[in-house]
Amino acid sequence: MNFASDNVYGVHPKILAALAAANDGTAPSYGGDDLTQAAEAKLAEVFETEVKAYLVTTGTAANGLALSAIAPGYGAIICHSEAHVSSDECNAPEFFTGGAKIVGLSGEGGKITPATIEKTLKGFIRGEHDPKPKGVSITNATELGTVYTPSEVRAIKELIAPRGMKLHMDGARFANAVVGLSTTPAELTWKSGVDVLSFGTSKNGAMVGEAVVFFDMGLAEDFAYRRMRGGQLVAKSRYLGAQMLAYLEGDLWLDNARRANALAQRLADGLKIASQVRVAHDVQANEVFAVMPRQLHQQLVAQGVSYHQRMSADVAGQMKDSETGVRLVLSFATPEADVDRFLALVHGAWMETRHDAR
Amino acid sequence: MNFASDNVYGVHPKILAALAAANDGTAPSYGGDDLTQAAEAKLAEVFETEVKAYLVTTGTAANGLALSAIAPGYGAIICHSEAHVSSDECNAPEFFTGGAKIVGLSGEGGKITPATIEKTLKGFIRGEHDPKPKGVSITNATELGTVYTPSEVRAIKELIAPRGMKLHMDGARFANAVVGLSTTPAELTWKSGVDVLSFGTSKNGAMVGEAVVFFDMGLAEDFAYRRMRGGQLVAKSRYLGAQMLAYLEGDLWLDNARRANALAQRLADGLKIASQVRVAHDVQANEVFAVMPRQLHQQLVAQGVSYHQRMSADVAGQMKDSETGVRLVLSFATPEADVDRFLALVHGAWMETRHDAR
Amino acid sequence: MNFASDNVYGVHPKILAALAAANDGTAPSYGGDDLTQAAEAKLAEVFETEVKAYLVTTGTAANGLALSAIAPGYGAIICHSEAHVSSDECNAPEFFTGGAKIVGLSGEGGKITPATIEKTLKGFIRGEHDPKPKGVSITNATELGTVYTPSEVRAIKELIAPRGMKLHMDGARFANAVVGLSTTPAELTWKSGVDVLSFGTSKNGAMVGEAVVFFDMGLAEDFAYRRMRGGQLVAKSRYLGAQMLAYLEGDLWLDNARRANALAQRLADGLKIASQVRVAHDVQANEVFAVMPRQLHQQLVAQGVSYHQRMSADVAGQMKDSETGVRLVLSFATPEADVDRFLALVHGAWMETRHDAR
Amino acid sequence: MNFASDNVYGVHPKILAALAAANDGTAPSYGGDDLTQAAEAKLAEVFETEVKAYLVTTGTAANGLALSAIAPGYGAIICHSEAHVSSDECNAPEFFTGGAKIVGLSGEGGKITPATIEKTLKGFIRGEHDPKPKGVSITNATELGTVYTPSEVRAIKELIAPRGMKLHMDGARFANAVVGLSTTPAELTWKSGVDVLSFGTSKNGAMVGEAVVFFDMGLAEDFAYRRMRGGQLVAKSRYLGAQMLAYLEGDLWLDNARRANALAQRLADGLKIASQVRVAHDVQANEVFAVMPRQLHQQLVAQGVSYHQRMSADVAGQMKDSETGVRLVLSFATPEADVDRFLALVHGAWMETRHDAR
Repeated sequence: MNFASDNVYGVHPKILAALAAANDGTAPSYGGDDLTQAAEAKLAEVFETEVKAYLVTTGTAANGLALSAIAPGYGAIICHSEAHVSSDECNAPEFFTGGAKIVGLSGEGGKITPATIEKTLKGFIRGEHDPKPKGVSITNATELGTVYTPSEVRAIKELIAPRGMKLHMDGARFANAVVGLSTTPAELTWKSGVDVLSFGTSKNGAMVGEAVVFFDMGLAEDFAYRRMRGGQLVAKSRYLGAQMLAYLEGDLWLDNARRANALAQRLADGLKIASQVRVAHDVQANEVFAVMPRQLHQQLVAQGVSYHQRMSADVAGQMKDSETGVRLVLSFATPEADVDRFLALVHGAWMETRHDAR
Repeated sequence: MNFASDNVYGVHPKILAALAAANDGTAPSYGGDDLTQAAEAKLAEVFETEVKAYLVTTGTAANGLALSAIAPGYGAIICHSEAHVSSDECNAPEFFTGGAKIVGLSGEGGKITPATIEKTLKGFIRGEHDPKPKGVSITNATELGTVYTPSEVRAIKELIAPRGMKLHMDGARFANAVVGLSTTPAELTWKSGVDVLSFGTSKNGAMVGEAVVFFDMGLAEDFAYRRMRGGQLVAKSRYLGAQMLAYLEGDLWLDNARRANALAQRLADGLKIASQVRVAHDVQANEVFAVMPRQLHQQLVAQGVSYHQRMSADVAGQMKDSETGVRLVLSFATPEADVDRFLALVHGAWMETRHDAR
Repeated sequence: MNFASDNVYGVHPKILAALAAANDGTAPSYGGDDLTQAAEAKLAEVFETEVKAYLVTTGTAANGLALSAIAPGYGAIICHSEAHVSSDECNAPEFFTGGAKIVGLSGEGGKITPATIEKTLKGFIRGEHDPKPKGVSITNATELGTVYTPSEVRAIKELIAPRGMKLHMDGARFANAVVGLSTTPAELTWKSGVDVLSFGTSKNGAMVGEAVVFFDMGLAEDFAYRRMRGGQLVAKSRYLGAQMLAYLEGDLWLDNARRANALAQRLADGLKIASQVRVAHDVQANEVFAVMPRQLHQQLVAQGVSYHQRMSADVAGQMKDSETGVRLVLSFATPEADVDRFLALVHGAWMETRHDAR
Repeated sequence: MNFASDNVYGVHPKILAALAAANDGTAPSYGGDDLTQAAEAKLAEVFETEVKAYLVTTGTAANGLALSAIAPGYGAIICHSEAHVSSDECNAPEFFTGGAKIVGLSGEGGKITPATIEKTLKGFIRGEHDPKPKGVSITNATELGTVYTPSEVRAIKELIAPRGMKLHMDGARFANAVVGLSTTPAELTWKSGVDVLSFGTSKNGAMVGEAVVFFDMGLAEDFAYRRMRGGQLVAKSRYLGAQMLAYLEGDLWLDNARRANALAQRLADGLKIASQVRVAHDVQANEVFAVMPRQLHQQLVAQGVSYHQRMSADVAGQMKDSETGVRLVLSFATPEADVDRFLALVHGAWMETRHDAR
C-alpha cells in the first residue's frame, strides 16, 4: 500500500506503448520532430485556443522557466507559502529567474486569495527598496488537495492585471483539478486569466516530461532560448512528444485523474467515519490529509503502509502532541483494493488499540 | 540516409525493454529507488573506482552542473572554441555557474593542448581584473570526431593541477572515445586526471538521461542540491536508472559505439578514395568531416541524404568558395547499407557530374 | 527637524578634511594605494586581530558580497524578517549569492534567537528539496534600535557552528551597537563568533563607503574577485581609504555613535513621559520607535518634522486604527536643539489637542 | 612621472569644493535629494534631449547595469575583444546580465566595424543553440586611445537596429572622445544611435561616481530596481550629485579632457620623432601606445616613470622579442612638465644607450 506520492507509480501502458511506437527510424533532434510538434499542436486543441507550448523534463524546471518569463531578478512572485515553488524546489525559481523573491503567503487549504495578495501588495510602497511584484503563482490542484475554481482564479487575475502582473498556474496536478471541478482546461486557464501554465504529466501516468504552456504570447518571446539555456531541450525530443500525445489522446489524462480523484474521495469518506481520524482539508483532487493518533500511525507503518508525514502549517499548529499528520496521495494506478485494505487497517487497528487500552 | 547526428536514431531495443521491465509496481521517487541506486553503483564498477554519480536529463545540463561544481561566477573555464560548452549551449554553462567565463581556444582537430592552455593562463596576470581560472573542459571524443589519448589528458592535468584547477571531460560521446582508443573508462578518466565527467548515453542508444560522474569527491559536495535546483532531479528516476543499467549491462554501450565507429571508418575510407572529397580530420570516433564540391553536396541533398553543413573554423578558413564542408555522424543504429549507398552516390554522382561537364 | 534617517545628515568635518588631504599627487588605482591599505590595517587594529578587510561603496553591496561568501545559490540564510537583507535591498542578497533563499523569521525587537533558528532548521529535513542552510545574518544594532549582546551572538554561533553554518553581522549601525553595549569591536564580533561583518560608516559620518571585514579567513578566499565582479572595486580607492582612516582615527566613529545614542536616549526619555505616546522597543542604539495618536503625528508633520512611518510587524499588529507608528533616527549631527524642539512639540501639541477636544 | 592611468590622479579642485559645499544640512537619502535630481536634469541639458540618468559608483557597475537592460541571460553582446567589458571586469557583465555571452571581436585600433559585426551575426544561424544577439557595446574613446566618429557609430546602429539589437557606449573616457572629435555629446550618442551610455567621470576629475544615461526610454524601465539590486544606490547620493554637477558645470569636463588630450598629442608628437619608438595607434584621445626597445623601457622605469606594459594583441603580435609595448595615459592633472621630462628621458636615454653601445 503506497500512498507516498502519485509519482511512485509507473507509466500508463498506453504511454509506454507510445514510446515503443515512436522508436522506429530517424527523427530530427532537439524538438524538430513530428511528434514534438504534434504534441504542441494537440495542446492547443485541448486548450481550445492558440498556445505556445514547450516540452521540458521536470516540473521544477517547468515552473522555474515559466516564472523566468514573468519575473526578472529584481521581481517578486507571490504564492502560497506551502506552494511547491516556495518550499520544495531548492531555490530553483530563484535560479531560473536570476534571483527573484518568492513571497509565500499563508492561507487556508493551500490557497491564496485576492485579499491576502492585495494586503501583501500594499506593503510594496517603497519603490526600488522592495522587489517589484511581477506575478502570482497558484497551484491547481493545490499541494493540499484542494482546488481553485475558475472564478477564484479570475478574481486573482482581476486584482493583479491592472498592476501589470502576470498569473502562473503550477499544474503539476492540473488534470486532477480539471476533473475535480468538472470544468474544461480552457475554463480553468486562459478563460480565467492564466498567462502561463506548468502542465504536469508525470504524476498522472507519464514517465518524464512536462510542458510549459503560454496563453499570453508575449511572455513566450525567446522562450526557446530560455529552455535551451536551462538544459531542458531534449535531444531525442520525440519521446517527450510521444508521451504527451498519448497522455492527451482520447482523454487518457482526464480518465487517469478521474480514477485518482475517485479513490481519494473513497479514502476520505472511509476516514471520515473513523472517529479517531480528522480529514484536514476539503478533498477536491487526489490527495487526502489526515490527522490521526500517533499510535494509529505507528501501527499503519508497521503494517507496511507508505505515506509521508506532512501537514499544512495551520493544521499542524493545532495538532496535539499525541497526533500525527499524514498525506495520502492517490494515483491513476493505485489499486482499489489498497484503499480498502488501508481503511480496514485504520478501522481494525483502532478497534484493537482501544481494546488493548482497556 | 540520415547522418545529421547520432541522436536522430531511436533507442536501442534492450534499453526500451528495460524501460518496460521497470514499469511494475511502486518505487520511491526522486532517486530513492533501487534502479537509480543500482545504476550509480554500476557506474562505479564500470570505472573501477569509487565515484559519485548523478543522473540528469540532458547533456547540456550535465555539463552546466558539472562546471558549476568547478567554477564560481568569477571563475573561468578554458576549453576549445568549438566545444559544445562554448558554442552550442546558449549560455547554459554561464547560467549554471552563475556567470563564469568560458574561454574558447583554437586548436587543431578540436583539441586544446598544454601549450595553448599555458599560454592563455599566462595572460591572467592582473588578479581580480580577470576572472580566476578554475578549470579546463575537454570533449572526448571531440566535436570534430577526434580523441584525446590518456596521455594527452594527463598532460593537461599536470599543467593545471598545480594551479588548483580542475579537469572536466564532456563525454557526450565518451563511449566512442573509449572504443576508438581501445582503452578503458578508468584509464581515460580518473587515471589520467579527470575530476568530473559528463557521461553521455543518449547519442549512443538511450532515450533521455546522462550522468555526472565525479572522481574528485570534494567536487561532489552538495551536488544533489545543485541538481535539484537546476530542475534536473527526475521524479520517476527509476526510468533513468533502468536506461543507464541497460546501457552499461553486458557492455552494450561499448558495442554500440564500436559499431558506430566502424561505420565512420568505413565511410571515411570510402570518401578518401573519392578524389573530389577531402576528409578533414582524423576519424577516431563516429564522426566524419568532409570538404566536397558544392555541386556534389547539392546532388547528395537532392538525393535525400541528411547531414549538417558544419566545418571546423580552421578548415573552413581554407575552403574554396565552390566547396562545402559537411559533418557526417554515424550511430549504433545507422544501417550499414546507408553508408554504402551514400558512398555509391558520392562516387556515382561525381562521375555523372564530370560527364555532364564535358 | 529631520529624524528620517541617520543618512540624511552630511559628512563629519574630519572626514571631509581627510578627503581633501588625500587629494594631492598620484596614487595607484583599484586599491593599490597607501590609504586603502592603511585603512585595512587600521581595521585589524580596531578589531584587535588579523582580519581581511575590503572597502566597498554601499551597505547593500557589503551585505550581498559578504553573504555570497557564505551561501551558494542552493543555500539559505536565516535572518529576521525585518532585517535589511530580507526586506530593504530589492533582492540584492539573492543577486550576489546567485539565488540563495533569505529566510526571514519573526522575533521581538528585531532579533532572532537560537530557539527560533533551531526551530527553523528542524524544518530542513528533506535534503535537497530544501535549500541548504549555510548561514545566519544578524543586524547589530538591529533595524529596530535594539542590540544583540555578545552573549546572545555567541549563543547563535554555538547553535549553528556545529552545523557548518557561518555567522554574518550586518553592522550598518555597528558603532551604535558597540557604544550601546559598552563593549569592544572585538568582543561583539569574532570573540562572539562572527565570521564576517558588514562594517558601516556612512550612517555615522562618512560620505560613501563601507567595509566587509572577515574574521574567518577561509571565507575571504577569492573575495577580491567577488568585489571586482560585483562592480565594487573603486578606481580611486584612496578616497575610500581616507574616509575609513579618518572615521576610525581617534575613535571618531565611537564618539559619533555615542552622541547619536545619547540623543536617542534623550528623545525616548522625553517621549516616555508623554502619556499619549508609547515607545515601542528598548532604545539601545540611535533609533526610537513610537506609537502615537494619528492626530499628533499629523500635527508634527504639519510643523515640519521629518521621519518615516515605520513600525515593526508585531507592534503594528497591535496598534489601533487611530494610531500611527513612527521611526525616529538620531545621528552624530542631529542638533540637540532639534530633539528638544521635537519633544516640546509633542508635549505642547498634545496639550493643545486635548484642549481643543474639550 | 605617472602615466599609469588617468585614475591615478586626484579630484579636480572644483569638484572637491562642490563636495564640501554639499555638506550642510540634511537631504533625503537614496537619490531623493536636490543635487542628485539636478545632476540628472543637467545631463539632459548636456545631451540636448530627454534622458533617464542614474548615478552609480563605478564604471564596471555602470557597464554591467547598462548591459543588463539590453541582454537577458540567454543573450549575447558583441564588442571588441579588448573592450573593458570583455577583458577587464572579472565577469561583471556576465554577473549583471545573468550570464549573457560577451563576444569579443578583433579589430584594428580597438574598434569593431559593421563588417566584423555582420560576419559574426551571420554565425548565429542555429536559433536557440546559440545565445540571441541583443546588443553591441563600443567604447568611446576606445581602450587604445582611438575614437569612433559619429558616422562610424551610426553605421553600426544601422546594421543592428533592424535586428532588434541595441547599442551601448562605454564612455569611461567619453569626454576625451567628444573633445577629440570636436563634436557634441548629442552628436556622438543619441543622434548617432546610441541607446544607453556609461558616462564616466572618475578618470577625468571626479572622485567616485559615474552615470548610466538612457536615450532609449524603454530600456530604462525598472532601471531603478536594477541599480538598487546591484548594490549601486548610494545612501548619501547628494555627494554623487554634487560631483556630477560640478563636473558638468561650465564645461569643466570638456576642459579637463581637452587638456588631457592635448598632453597626449604632445607626448605622441615627441615620441614620433624618436626613431627608436613607434606610436602604435592614432592618438585621438588621452592615451598613447608605444613600442620601444626593452632597454629603453628599463631605463625609463629605472628613472621612476610609471606606466603599464600593455599593448593591443595585433600590435603585440608583431613586436620583436627585444621590444616592449607600453601604454601612457594622460590626465587633466598630469603636469605638463612631466611630459617634457619624459620625452627628454626618452631622447636622452636613448642617446646614452647608443653611446654606450659603441
